[in-house]
Amino acid sequence: MPELRKDPIVGRWVIIATERAKRPNDFAGQSVQIRGTGFCPFCEGNESKTPPEVLAYGRNNGAAPNTPGWTVRVVPNKFPALGIEGELERSGEGLFDRMNGIGAHEVIIETTNHQLTLAQLSVRQIEEVLWAYRDRMLDLKNDKRFRYILIFKNHGEAAGASLEHTHSQLIALPIVPRQVREEVSSAHRYYQDKERCIFCDMVRQELADGVRVIVDNEHFVALAPYAPRFPFETWILPKQHLSAFENAQSPLYHSLARLLKEVLVRVDVVLDRPPYNYILHTSPIGEESNEHYHWHIEFMPKLTKVAGFEWGSGFYINPTPPEEAARFLREAQVPAAD
Amino acid sequence: MPELRKDPIVGRWVIIATERAKRPNDFAGQSVQIRGTGFCPFCEGNESKTPPEVLAYGRNNGAAPNTPGWTVRVVPNKFPALGIEGELERSGEGLFDRMNGIGAHEVIIETTNHQLTLAQLSVRQIEEVLWAYRDRMLDLKNDKRFRYILIFKNHGEAAGASLEHTHSQLIALPIVPRQVREEVSSAHRYYQDKERCIFCDMVRQELADGVRVIVDNEHFVALAPYAPRFPFETWILPKQHLSAFENAQSPLYHSLARLLKEVLVRVDVVLDRPPYNYILHTSPIGEESNEHYHWHIEFMPKLTKVAGFEWGSGFYINPTPPEEAARFLREAQVPAAD
Repeated sequence: MPELRKDPIVGRWVIIATERAKRPNDFAGQSVQIRGTGFCPFCEGNESKTPPEVLAYGRNNGAAPNTPGWTVRVVPNKFPALGIEGELERSGEGLFDRMNGIGAHEVIIETTNHQLTLAQLSVRQIEEVLWAYRDRMLDLKNDKRFRYILIFKNHGEAAGASLEHTHSQLIALPIVPRQVREEVSSAHRYYQDKERCIFCDMVRQELADGVRVIVDNEHFVALAPYAPRFPFETWILPKQHLSAFENAQSPLYHSLARLLKEVLVRVDVVLDRPPYNYILHTSPIGEESNEHYHWHIEFMPKLTKVAGFEWGSGFYINPTPPEEAARFLREAQVPAAD
Repeated sequence: MPELRKDPIVGRWVIIATERAKRPNDFAGQSVQIRGTGFCPFCEGNESKTPPEVLAYGRNNGAAPNTPGWTVRVVPNKFPALGIEGELERSGEGLFDRMNGIGAHEVIIETTNHQLTLAQLSVRQIEEVLWAYRDRMLDLKNDKRFRYILIFKNHGEAAGASLEHTHSQLIALPIVPRQVREEVSSAHRYYQDKERCIFCDMVRQELADGVRVIVDNEHFVALAPYAPRFPFETWILPKQHLSAFENAQSPLYHSLARLLKEVLVRVDVVLDRPPYNYILHTSPIGEESNEHYHWHIEFMPKLTKVAGFEWGSGFYINPTPPEEAARFLREAQVPAAD
């Protein structure tokens, strides 16, 4: 008998297949291959082919911007979903509401090396990527037009990546997306009821129980959530309460880099280098310090197709119980991290 | 400058690209091809290879069930997402809530002919498919364990169809999915405020305006919604207020079959037979007669990939303005319907 499970934070129900559960080998392999053919605007030496950079780490003092020698580089998206120029204008048309599409859309180029995936970067290099996320968030928060900054990564064409050179994206939005608002509001209601953070409660219960824990370190835990939408969905949460990613103390970025690499390497081994998405969930601008919301990363390998049932109901059918997914990832034989 | 638009019913924001908007030819072709190779359990003559049918139309009086001679046939899904047997049991585990996966999962086989798509069936045959939807809904509503019946279609492998013989699916659920509940609740709030159905208002505004209307007939209109998630997303709504699909007067099924075929044929011409999903949005069980909710079909060709941004925000980037999508579909040269 399948099981219906409810996510305690957002209230989303999922159907978990408990019989004939799909194991890693049951997912049709769509391994991400780096082809490296053709021109790549993200490679070192091609800096003039992107819009001028907004951040770069690693160049020697005195080196000019938009030249080689960087380690991580952030540039505006050449084909932005939103435009950075202008004032926000709102208008209506009968029943309908719109505003002009003011926002920022940036690309975080995670390495100069076209051949490497994020999982293959050193912990030190992954840490630089995380610092770039933070520095861009802090800078964009000065722009009073923005209410939310969403950072995400699409890896592999099947997960929506249009360029294969490893990169993340940042979109600054003039509104808080409804899904983020609902997540924060649900956590707030729980806090009002219990005076505890629901994520802290979840981390405590999961660490005590252990069955859905994949790996942890001093500051973070990676776990399979109780009601995952997708097979092998994995969340990485700070063990201590912290509501905004960009306000973490500096040792946390190193810890997170280590755990993120650990998760990515395990996923690559168990699922044969699948396409994936991850999303940084953090507090909206202006609400960064609070007791109810707890920033985290939601990681989702792209193994199944979202179809009519999911679109119609917002209700997901997941063919792999999270306890089994966690066990596969926990027991994977992987080399020790550098 | 892109535009942010808000869906007036569910409050979802989307980003509509207004410059460099994608036209039909810009979407990488992934035409659905019927290969017809290999064994098909849905073909006439293979009735014994499915679970025993729960409904069939078209056989001569006296013919045995699960034999050839049918026009539309409904069978339980051989690999159901939910199980039909047993009582609903709810339980908790610390923070978490679950129930056993009681439900029904059925397949509506739309024709005996493996080579045809729904768009290629006659209006009469499509009407039979709609009657099968209705008859199964009415029957399953007698089961007191169910709160919602979701009918949907996945067409083409990229849209999640695992068998190519044209079929729809039905899932009866022991809970009302949150997304359905939100849609109905939003419509209810609008009604409380204005004493009008928001869908009726939308239909009136769109018919008066015309720019997003694709095609209409005496009872139905097909339009591109103001804030579509996906390029060429199309909704089909009854012009007169009606809250539940299964309670329509019989002439409406014929009208709907004509308009649905018209839309599918136009989509096949303009987008070169794309994979697609459609979902029947109707009132929850026990709330079928009301003034605020208005049943409809949401049709979404599968042209783009949903990626990190959409998963993280519930906010969609749509590269084709609905006004342009509607114009392409409206102006398509198609043969007259039979």
